[in-house]
Amino acid sequence: MGGPEDAGDDAAPRRGYAKGAARRAQILDQVLRMVAEHGVDASSLRSVADAVGVSHATLRHYFPTRDDLLVAVYHEHEVQRGDAGGPPSSVVGGMRKSAVLNREVPGLVQLYTTLAGDAAGEGHPVTREFFRERFTRLRAELSEQVRADQEAGRIDPAVDAGDLAALAIAASDGIQVQWLLDPDAVDGARVLELLERLVPPPAEPGS
Amino acid sequence: MGGPEDAGDDAAPRRGYAKGAARRAQILDQVLRMVAEHGVDASSLRSVADAVGVSHATLRHYFPTRDDLLVAVYHEHEVQRGDAGGPPSSVVGGMRKSAVLNREVPGLVQLYTTLAGDAAGEGHPVTREFFRERFTRLRAELSEQVRADQEAGRIDPAVDAGDLAALAIAASDGIQVQWLLDPDAVDGARVLELLERLVPPPAEPGS
Repeated sequence: MGGPEDAGDDAAPRRGYAKGAARRAQILDQVLRMVAEHGVDASSLRSVADAVGVSHATLRHYFPTRDDLLVAVYHEHEVQRGDAGGPPSSVVGGMRKSAVLNREVPGLVQLYTTLAGDAAGEGHPVTREFFRERFTRLRAELSEQVRADQEAGRIDPAVDAGDLAALAIAASDGIQVQWLLDPDAVDGARVLELLERLVPPPAEPGS
Repeated sequence: MGGPEDAGDDAAPRRGYAKGAARRAQILDQVLRMVAEHGVDASSLRSVADAVGVSHATLRHYFPTRDDLLVAVYHEHEVQRGDAGGPPSSVVGGMRKSAVLNREVPGLVQLYTTLAGDAAGEGHPVTREFFRERFTRLRAELSEQVRADQEAGRIDPAVDAGDLAALAIAASDGIQVQWLLDPDAVDGARVLELLERLVPPPAEPGS
């Protein structure tokens, strides 16, 4: 399960580590653009290798399983977009901005939803661990942001920071699925904007 | 793709329609209990047939593909729980109640999340259509409920009913994924209760 059982050390001996890392990054970037443009289908590692123009053995050296590749592609997307670089400037605001950006890359929203389905199911330990860690990190970052907003007098201190963080992530993830299936009926950014407006400021003194 | 290309009319000739329907319902109920107890894994129709104790041909007669079976199982779960029988009594309240009930059947929450991932991806037309219709119906029912609450003076009429309906469904779907991956860290019912509290009543006259 996901083990690099035949990773083929020939392809990247120790002295070639930097070269190997560069090659990996190059392949990842190509697959990322492929997924962004055409979506992720049920394709095998073999067909991805063909499309990217590397041998099946080379692709398997860097990404032993399809799950390894898809998780790496989604992570790379987040890194390139800066999602992984510190907390967003506002709790729901960051999610709303993502929803606007995501309109341009339905293939990556599709990849995210497919991976979330895998993570929740059996038989995808790499994907499950990626999502578990991602949710834990995101909840911690957003909770911190909520508490900062509460100290600055922008959010009612009675709201539980952890629950609001989990809610913002949940709303963002859930609305993407509805949008993917019915882009004309669902405006993800507008729905998240509603959630943002619902979060109450501190109660007026004396009210 | 999902076509009953070898549905085997022998197994349920027209004169045996009622018998066929009963047999189908019986199989469905067995698979539903199986999924509720043990979750859905990457099992083939063949292994489901073995577990339920019918021939592969019989199972394929009623459910030509794995997608047909899984969608039917989830639909049956909703019917048995009464989700499919009219709008819930309150917009987020119904979702919150579902989250409490879902704690008892993680296998079905897992099935839902797996199916949502399939629906958003390629190659699962039956699942996609089921989810599209389900979301369209749920958004319509919940929107109607929001408007009723607005007319009764329970929800601020400035809130867009359709957006709130989509938000409630999104939050409910999204929180289940976080809960499945980390049940000790995430309390889905409490997070949906927060959303319920955030929905504002009408503004006080003169304020």
